[in-house]
Amino acid sequence: MPYRAPLADFRFLFEHVIGLDRVRATDRFAEAGADVTDAVLTEAARLAEEVLAPLQRPGDLHPARLDGDVVRTPPGYAEAYRAIAEGGWIGIAAPEGVGGMGLPMTVATAVNEMMAGACLSLQLNPLMTQGQIEALDHHGSPEMQALYLPRLVTGEWCGTMNLTEPQAGSDVGALRTRAEPNGDGTYAITGQKIYITWGDNDFTANVCHLVLARLPDGAPGTKGISLFMVPKFIPDADGNPGKRNSLRVVSLEHKLGLHGSPTAVMDYDGATGWLVGAPHGGMAAMFTMMNNARLGVGMQGVGVAEAAFQHALAYARDRRQGRVIAGDTDAIADHADVRRMLMAMKADTFAARAIGLSCAVAIDMARATGDEDWAARAGLLTPIAKAFGTDTGVEVAEAGIQVHGGMGYIEETGAAQFLRDVRVTAIYEGTNGIQAMDLVGRKMMDGGEAAFRLLEEIEKNAEGARANFPNMAGATWAAAETLREATEMMLTREMNDRFAGAVPYLRAFARVLGADAHLRAARAEGGTGPRSTLARFYIKRLLPEYAPLLVHMREGAAELYAMTAADLAP
Amino acid sequence: MPYRAPLADFRFLFEHVIGLDRVRATDRFAEAGADVTDAVLTEAARLAEEVLAPLQRPGDLHPARLDGDVVRTPPGYAEAYRAIAEGGWIGIAAPEGVGGMGLPMTVATAVNEMMAGACLSLQLNPLMTQGQIEALDHHGSPEMQALYLPRLVTGEWCGTMNLTEPQAGSDVGALRTRAEPNGDGTYAITGQKIYITWGDNDFTANVCHLVLARLPDGAPGTKGISLFMVPKFIPDADGNPGKRNSLRVVSLEHKLGLHGSPTAVMDYDGATGWLVGAPHGGMAAMFTMMNNARLGVGMQGVGVAEAAFQHALAYARDRRQGRVIAGDTDAIADHADVRRMLMAMKADTFAARAIGLSCAVAIDMARATGDEDWAARAGLLTPIAKAFGTDTGVEVAEAGIQVHGGMGYIEETGAAQFLRDVRVTAIYEGTNGIQAMDLVGRKMMDGGEAAFRLLEEIEKNAEGARANFPNMAGATWAAAETLREATEMMLTREMNDRFAGAVPYLRAFARVLGADAHLRAARAEGGTGPRSTLARFYIKRLLPEYAPLLVHMREGAAELYAMTAADLAP
Repeated sequence: MPYRAPLADFRFLFEHVIGLDRVRATDRFAEAGADVTDAVLTEAARLAEEVLAPLQRPGDLHPARLDGDVVRTPPGYAEAYRAIAEGGWIGIAAPEGVGGMGLPMTVATAVNEMMAGACLSLQLNPLMTQGQIEALDHHGSPEMQALYLPRLVTGEWCGTMNLTEPQAGSDVGALRTRAEPNGDGTYAITGQKIYITWGDNDFTANVCHLVLARLPDGAPGTKGISLFMVPKFIPDADGNPGKRNSLRVVSLEHKLGLHGSPTAVMDYDGATGWLVGAPHGGMAAMFTMMNNARLGVGMQGVGVAEAAFQHALAYARDRRQGRVIAGDTDAIADHADVRRMLMAMKADTFAARAIGLSCAVAIDMARATGDEDWAARAGLLTPIAKAFGTDTGVEVAEAGIQVHGGMGYIEETGAAQFLRDVRVTAIYEGTNGIQAMDLVGRKMMDGGEAAFRLLEEIEKNAEGARANFPNMAGATWAAAETLREATEMMLTREMNDRFAGAVPYLRAFARVLGADAHLRAARAEGGTGPRSTLARFYIKRLLPEYAPLLVHMREGAAELYAMTAADLAP
Repeated sequence: MPYRAPLADFRFLFEHVIGLDRVRATDRFAEAGADVTDAVLTEAARLAEEVLAPLQRPGDLHPARLDGDVVRTPPGYAEAYRAIAEGGWIGIAAPEGVGGMGLPMTVATAVNEMMAGACLSLQLNPLMTQGQIEALDHHGSPEMQALYLPRLVTGEWCGTMNLTEPQAGSDVGALRTRAEPNGDGTYAITGQKIYITWGDNDFTANVCHLVLARLPDGAPGTKGISLFMVPKFIPDADGNPGKRNSLRVVSLEHKLGLHGSPTAVMDYDGATGWLVGAPHGGMAAMFTMMNNARLGVGMQGVGVAEAAFQHALAYARDRRQGRVIAGDTDAIADHADVRRMLMAMKADTFAARAIGLSCAVAIDMARATGDEDWAARAGLLTPIAKAFGTDTGVEVAEAGIQVHGGMGYIEETGAAQFLRDVRVTAIYEGTNGIQAMDLVGRKMMDGGEAAFRLLEEIEKNAEGARANFPNMAGATWAAAETLREATEMMLTREMNDRFAGAVPYLRAFARVLGADAHLRAARAEGGTGPRSTLARFYIKRLLPEYAPLLVHMREGAAELYAMTAADLAP
């Protein structure tokens, strides 16, 4: 079943749920009217459906491979990449001054979701470049910006992020890659990096690696880390790719999925690099790149969830099996248990999409207004959008396999590929455990202010809905209130108690945000229609999960250590 | 990390949780004393650890393949199969009269779990044969029993189950395979069967297919289905494999996992078959085979959960990353969020194992005493053991990937293989949705009597524990009571309302059964020690999930149909 971009959902969310009108009311994004965003989404949908979606299976069957020192990409990827680049989609949110479209992050986020849903393994490439554009736009020198940004925005060159080393994964501060000054303003970068997404390819003229490394006087830990631009080919005086730099792809990983996307082990052997931002300021630059990427990865989860849902729905509407008791067809989609699965898949995908787009709205508002509250909201929502978006991707892909029955286990069906592909999104750009720790740690350093502000809005929305939707409004209000109390309680706890309940807390938060989005959708629809039915399904059957999650969260850490890790062994 | 059979858990469960003493007190199983069962488990553990576990990765890397008309199995499988057969493990629960060990199903279930945990793809072969032995023992003619049983029990021949056809999966009654009388007491079987596990191999002298087909006068639906024995080679007068039968493997499936196990499309072209049981009595015979297999499949889930847990634990105890706040090591196993995952994995695996073994005890008691109540309990627990065991397998394998971080996505690590392999167990032998519908439908045709009897025992156990363990006992009692009320309510509902909540209901039931097992473990341990810590973890943090599950269940079907399947499309 071919992928269909969920345009109606985007339009509905833009107008009725996430409040894009506030973004449009700013000077910066005044031109992003409904006619413009609609045209943009329609064009991106066409690309996703017609150009990217047909590459989903071929990318799995013909993995990227290392051929000598060249990375060969799956058939069709080069052409599709060019279509993405020529459509201007890489620079959709980049400043117009460097050739970007200058559109709101909200629109870029929707576009990225569609491309990820259509072909995740290829979409990863422009997503990485977008992160690099963001980092250079904020931290690069004017010369570096002038040289790299236009070429990245057009897709002539692409970008990668080089953070991880074998001993330095979640703990970036443990990295060992060295940067020695060459005396001419450049640095010699030496070290090995792993898990480098799209570490090389055979379709861009250059590959620009942003590499975290330590200067000779860099302190141990994260405070001594600097960021360097290390291009595969060193640009000549005209800005064309010149001499080959001393870096190479050592090998590509054999992964559970995303076979179309080359994940490289990279070796830097005195490679020439240029400092990005201040010495020892690498973490700040990295977080710029990473926060952007975290929302993008969350939307990858949503995109795959949408694709896996559509795939399962099409199968369930076609497959006849057993006696159907209710519904208007004799297909398995009308079996109660299959219907339950399909509705849960759709309701969660909608919730995750709304959370991701709300995060994007906050980013846009922060950029357009400079308002600290909006920046804090973006910071709060980013780990939730990343973790819940990707968890939803995994869960919906799982459910999609189950809807297919035995066919779900056969690779030709394509249902299993969604799970294999999306599984890593819950891991990369910071595992979902790291996201949860970010939420209860760094993102609560404001004393919970951003969280309380958001929960107030949710309670207010619920109060406004109470007259017409007493049950849904009451359940949403009660959940938000319980979450508020749990947040207050958590703020009194030691950090390890917070960490012990971080993952359940994040999920409970997402459940409440999802209820708020569904309630807004039901209100906008007037309470009758598919969106209202879905809202009732979500609020009555999925939202209640928040209660035991918060019970779990409140238990804290002590009991986890009443036995040792050795005691856990058989 | 090598697989270690969880012998201590089995011993503890046998003595303190599942009440194997009652089985031992019967005449039939009087010889299965602790010394005997201990020796048996120890020997099986050795086989699992030393012979089967080393084949886990090779079976994935060297899939079974069709070479002309011969199925080639992965390197080492033939030798390991012989070791299983020669150890007598195929006939562990088979009657001694046909060469079996005549041991309780409880012991066989533990042995099967170990073999599945060590190498699921190979263990599937003997599991299928065990189901066939069971079916022939109950439904075969004396001549058929004399011919087949000894050869199946020794593993000289092996057995398969042929149920599914492209249009007849969960709905077996839709099958089209025909059986025409040959006039000499045999039948000509013609049709195509799919998803035939271990449809052929290159290490047994014969492959005995039990095939569901319809006689010329067979009514449509399940009532007109008969069961036939259709051997690959027709036994000659001496019982040796003779003439090749008219059946063949058309192709092998490309599956998400279990690459070592050949899943065949089988073609029967007038193949000679012998009727098993009464004409049109195929479903009864199939259910004998299937009920056995369902418990076996549930324990496959538990076995893989155990293996995936051990694999993740070993990694987490070895891997150092980031600053550890609590615990006695600096490994990631002492990070609160990783500890949370590991404890949930172990606690759920223990619960699922206890449920499966309790189901086996009920089967043993029913066989040994003929007591209908025990048979009803076995019937009630079978779908729960199957669905919760396999869901736990999938969830623990998922969590195992997450514990590994980026390494979990790299195939060489082995973490992803557990998920790929175990995923099908939630589908085959009746999807977990079908199990749940069996629980709320067929297994409640006694007016809930078996369920209420079991819940009474659980409440009684909780009451007995209240003095020493007020919190755990109180929570378990309250959960059992809520489940009792939900069951009563459900029994008043139309079947489609039951089906709409069947999966959440089954899971809530499993949560309560798990709490009962953990509480018994804590009582037996005296409240201090790792088992008690795990019990508190489970009862405080995992059990509470039952409440929203039962809320979900109570909602019923109506709202699921307030929108059509077409409304769900984007």
